[in-house]
Amino acid sequence: MSTRLDRQIAFLNEADKLKSVLRGTTLGDASRRENSAEHSWHLTLYALVLADQAGPDVDIDRVLRMLILHDLVEIDAGDNPIFGTVDAPAVAAAEQAAADRIFGLLPDDLSTGLRAIWEEFEAAETPTARFAKSLDRFQPPMQNLMSGGGSWVEYNVTEERVAERVGSAIARGAPGLWDYARRRIAAWFAARAD
Amino acid sequence: MSTRLDRQIAFLNEADKLKSVLRGTTLGDASRRENSAEHSWHLTLYALVLADQAGPDVDIDRVLRMLILHDLVEIDAGDNPIFGTVDAPAVAAAEQAAADRIFGLLPDDLSTGLRAIWEEFEAAETPTARFAKSLDRFQPPMQNLMSGGGSWVEYNVTEERVAERVGSAIARGAPGLWDYARRRIAAWFAARAD
Repeated sequence: MSTRLDRQIAFLNEADKLKSVLRGTTLGDASRRENSAEHSWHLTLYALVLADQAGPDVDIDRVLRMLILHDLVEIDAGDNPIFGTVDAPAVAAAEQAAADRIFGLLPDDLSTGLRAIWEEFEAAETPTARFAKSLDRFQPPMQNLMSGGGSWVEYNVTEERVAERVGSAIARGAPGLWDYARRRIAAWFAARAD
Repeated sequence: MSTRLDRQIAFLNEADKLKSVLRGTTLGDASRRENSAEHSWHLTLYALVLADQAGPDVDIDRVLRMLILHDLVEIDAGDNPIFGTVDAPAVAAAEQAAADRIFGLLPDDLSTGLRAIWEEFEAAETPTARFAKSLDRFQPPMQNLMSGGGSWVEYNVTEERVAERVGSAIARGAPGLWDYARRRIAAWFAARAD
């Protein structure tokens, strides 16, 4: 018979698989693709360091929880690179099924509590979730600027396409970060065109 | 001239290097060594899921911050596998120098605030830091139990040596977790001896 602690550990062991889900972005030195576990860690550090970019209604402690949990569903549903083609309703359905299975490994109280945090992140309706989403969209361009273009080169996208895919999501939760990213992205594309 | 945001991003870019610091433990499927960034993420999830193992004086929000920051110094000072031989004063000095350089990349207010969290973790004197340390010592045996022995096999250690290296640190901040780990470690070594 499995105890409460057995179920908690079963969930934590399952979560280990997020370290093997690879993203479209690479490490800053371009040596390999980034995985979703280390990306999630990096985002929590973004939240600690860039908390002064959040509006007054943002709860940074809850932002941290959202960022820790936000990609767990990728263990089943995979990562969807930002410039790839996606069937959004199919992805949403796959992620809901993944959440059922993965959060369902936990004791009920924890399953309900942690899933509610993930659902709030996904819905992106609260100031806290919008700020967390902004960071999730802001980090990939920072990785690409470090690594010499990364997914911008791989997917051969234009500056306008980058702005379209990440600009509004960043600006919605953290306008100061979009102002910063927009200028640096423009400079990178301008230098490349020379 | 670098702005406040330039300094924040310079720190976050430097932190990216933690994804290339390899640990003694492997992923659960033993496919490769774990890195310190994804390990840090995993620990934050441990804190969320195992918060009920913390004593009443533990601040879980601060535990999360400690775990996000705790290994950053390894970018310069490297990881010290738990069963390796270490010169503790030399390691401590290297980690202090690393903290000077890495936290020093930040604007002063952030540098002071985040370093204080890291120093509290290192000192392991508060209930919050002791719980964070317990998780940092509890996760590697869980990885080894998943991966078929991991660093226990690599370093050819006895059950007594494992208990000596991790037992008191886990028990100090989370006695329930040490009770659980101790039983599972004993069962693993017993099965191996058969």
